Amino acid sequence: MNGAQALIRTLVDAGVDTCFMNPGTSEMHFVAALDSVAEVRGVLALFEGVATGAADGYARMAGRPAATLLHLGPGLGNGLANLHNARKARTPVVNIVGDHATYHKRYDAQLESDIETVARNVSRFVRTSQRVEDLAGDAAEAIAAAAGPPGEVATLILPADVSWSDGASPAAVPALPGRRAVAADTVEVVAKALRSGEPAAILVGGSACRADALHAASRVAAATGAKLACETFPARLERGACVPEVERIAYLGEMAAAQLDGIRHLVVVDSKAPVSFFAYPGKPSDLVPDGCEVHVLAGHDEDAAGALAALADAVRAPAASAVVSDGSRPDRPTGALTAQALGAAIGALLPEGAIVSDEANTSGLFATAATAGAPRHDWLCLTGGAIGQGLPVAVGAAVACPDRRVLAFQADGSALYTFQALWTMAREGLDVTTVLLNNRSYAILNMELNRVGAETPGPKAKAMLDLTRPDMDFVALAAGLGVPASRATTADELVDQLGRSFATPGPSLVEAMIPSPW
Amino acid sequence: MNGAQALIRTLVDAGVDTCFMNPGTSEMHFVAALDSVAEVRGVLALFEGVATGAADGYARMAGRPAATLLHLGPGLGNGLANLHNARKARTPVVNIVGDHATYHKRYDAQLESDIETVARNVSRFVRTSQRVEDLAGDAAEAIAAAAGPPGEVATLILPADVSWSDGASPAAVPALPGRRAVAADTVEVVAKALRSGEPAAILVGGSACRADALHAASRVAAATGAKLACETFPARLERGACVPEVERIAYLGEMAAAQLDGIRHLVVVDSKAPVSFFAYPGKPSDLVPDGCEVHVLAGHDEDAAGALAALADAVRAPAASAVVSDGSRPDRPTGALTAQALGAAIGALLPEGAIVSDEANTSGLFATAATAGAPRHDWLCLTGGAIGQGLPVAVGAAVACPDRRVLAFQADGSALYTFQALWTMAREGLDVTTVLLNNRSYAILNMELNRVGAETPGPKAKAMLDLTRPDMDFVALAAGLGVPASRATTADELVDQLGRSFATPGPSLVEAMIPSPW
Repeated sequence: MNGAQALIRTLVDAGVDTCFMNPGTSEMHFVAALDSVAEVRGVLALFEGVATGAADGYARMAGRPAATLLHLGPGLGNGLANLHNARKARTPVVNIVGDHATYHKRYDAQLESDIETVARNVSRFVRTSQRVEDLAGDAAEAIAAAAGPPGEVATLILPADVSWSDGASPAAVPALPGRRAVAADTVEVVAKALRSGEPAAILVGGSACRADALHAASRVAAATGAKLACETFPARLERGACVPEVERIAYLGEMAAAQLDGIRHLVVVDSKAPVSFFAYPGKPSDLVPDGCEVHVLAGHDEDAAGALAALADAVRAPAASAVVSDGSRPDRPTGALTAQALGAAIGALLPEGAIVSDEANTSGLFATAATAGAPRHDWLCLTGGAIGQGLPVAVGAAVACPDRRVLAFQADGSALYTFQALWTMAREGLDVTTVLLNNRSYAILNMELNRVGAETPGPKAKAMLDLTRPDMDFVALAAGLGVPASRATTADELVDQLGRSFATPGPSLVEAMIPSPW
Repeated sequence: MNGAQALIRTLVDAGVDTCFMNPGTSEMHFVAALDSVAEVRGVLALFEGVATGAADGYARMAGRPAATLLHLGPGLGNGLANLHNARKARTPVVNIVGDHATYHKRYDAQLESDIETVARNVSRFVRTSQRVEDLAGDAAEAIAAAAGPPGEVATLILPADVSWSDGASPAAVPALPGRRAVAADTVEVVAKALRSGEPAAILVGGSACRADALHAASRVAAATGAKLACETFPARLERGACVPEVERIAYLGEMAAAQLDGIRHLVVVDSKAPVSFFAYPGKPSDLVPDGCEVHVLAGHDEDAAGALAALADAVRAPAASAVVSDGSRPDRPTGALTAQALGAAIGALLPEGAIVSDEANTSGLFATAATAGAPRHDWLCLTGGAIGQGLPVAVGAAVACPDRRVLAFQADGSALYTFQALWTMAREGLDVTTVLLNNRSYAILNMELNRVGAETPGPKAKAMLDLTRPDMDFVALAAGLGVPASRATTADELVDQLGRSFATPGPSLVEAMIPSPW
């Protein structure tokens, strides 16, 4: 058994049976070994950022890691932005990067570079496997590191000769630790703060954004009068009918400050105290109000759902007191296609069990409220702020959940970073509906140009933020990658096309022409 | 004057007046400052790999660096592959990466990451400018580091508050050192080896691939009987009518070994002794024949052209003895569209002064010979092996040389890494003809899968290397990005469409349907 075969067998035995890949010559033995392990599935991406984002989306939904396969330092570079998002999401990813043969590195061939230095940007676990005898054991350690808790991006660098040499055998991954239980004292301290009568808020994130944790948090909020909120960009938020609705902390610091105004106790649960996304001249980075005490109910490696259940008991919250969404949907919109109408269309039509990969940015703001009463669904956010996540995460989510419809809710500017994802959707026949919001600008940057206090922009500055000259045609782009597409210019057209896409197996794209706010 | 304004003024005063950019919020003051300096030109890319590759192509042709502007760690990651190619090309690039405000970093906001660790993969010079008073001086040092010789990618990290604060003033870049002259002794040692009568070869690279150096090298070869060859992937090779033709060392180690068989003296001139691109089981990494002595005539920071001229004198080569290309072109091909016909069409039609950005990979092999007698032109190669270079380098070359036609000679698999470059071609009205070789496979990987000795590939392995299911439609993709395109399925159609593209201002794309060799 060669190294690659033992590596894949080790992965599969540990439940890592899906590999999103963009291989090159140094990974050819790994590719060849795919056929030696029946259970493994290789999914080809045309660009590494698609592979890494798909691994993130897969694990967010499957609850276990996928592997990636990337080609040396440049391939890792291409995949880095979505690994950054995975790191911030605390998603487990087994990130495999091929390298030159160990004995070839000293020749400084064209593709030689320092892979480990790049990997350290996203990975605490970085290991270059040096001997075929050690490869499977190194892989087992990488899998364990990735799994956490909390999950992380573990990078295993695989020299070509370690991959091709014989003499390997699979290794077992030791039993993984679960999340640590939160101490009863911690729960009691938080309960006391919430019973104080002072204004309080519970800020959930990470694993506390799942339905069971949200039910417990909602009971606590109802019993104590605390406000319930969740982090700005949760990795996976369960929501919709029969799930407690939770307000997300706003992206804009001014709005977040209003949400938290007057709060004296902020209880963070698998989340962190809110900070401004960017710095702005004269505005605070720390969004916790003055005089507010921050209480950590559960850290990122702790059992947040259990802690919230214990907290609900400690504040004597009745069992059925969670405030859940009532399942009401907006009417189907008609007339002009605005950002509001777009939100309403999605709220009216979102299928039961849908998974929304949200990179809609400025034009997507209205969809959150409009879908609060839609059938139960998951909402996956841009955790690390590195745009180009939306379409790849949709790929991974669809691979993980083949019986559910995925909605990629995608802005135009960010779509172009990883648009190659559409080809993988077509190849794999994934049930992904992409709604492409075309407002023909980097609208968020026009807003930010004002917010950072930059002087009145001149023509050269403005040209850097607009996406016209030429206009992009996303229907043509999708067709070029094998995905059927249509363009909606009215709300009625959108409703019609969106309904058709939801009802049609396989991927399709609807380009929604939205007026730019700028 | 704020930091951004002083930075841009410093760049422009040092001759760095073009900035290829994909900015985000933390770079908004730099964007706003573009209008404060009349001479600076900002060129927007939809993806960072386009910006970095364009900076590489620009400097290869302009002979002076461009700047980039990238958005934090993820933006640098997206641009890393083409910075790797620039590093291997020894191209000067002033690589500016925006960062959070200095005081904001400790809050670990969503986009926080360790930028410097990523930058070290491509840059020896990495500096995070910490104070607005130091910014212009830091920039001047970065420019000097980038300029070399040899050129390099110098990374300047620009925190948002350093960019927006007032109190900056421009800095001057000290006079840059030229290339060091090669010692007379060194020339004499090489001359003696070449006069020995033993089989010898001169291997030129880098700055020795320009016409004046090639003339001198050709004189030496004619006078001594030495073989003249150049590195496999030169950054910029001048060739065509009245320029000495030089054989490139083959990508395949087996072919390179045949080219160098029996050589006893290998004279390297701003190049390195050849090594295998990848390692292969049982095959050598070092391609220098056994018993061959390697002589360094000029290092990467030395005056290679001057050394070759001195060497020509030392071996008493007559002044006009260079063997130059005779200016003969192949006939226009007719009939089936094969890789051979494609090469002939380009050879028959390539305009005077063209710049060829070559990422044609397997299907482009015939074009080299077919264009040897074309009018004088430049040939830009994939220096670092990180695919996705071709279209961005074409953008940069066209910006640097607006009076010349650029031919982006581009394979399908690698095109999809940075296809967003077409939009920038359209926006800037660049005279770029893209010939897109569509053979519907990662053909080179099919070849490599055999070469690495992988066992007979199974269906899962083969699926990772084919680009069908679905077929890509590059005419639609180009149209989606605003570039007019057509498809050629016969040699006659190709000749017609290629001629039309060369004669039409602005960008256009011809999709050449080539049978896959696999």
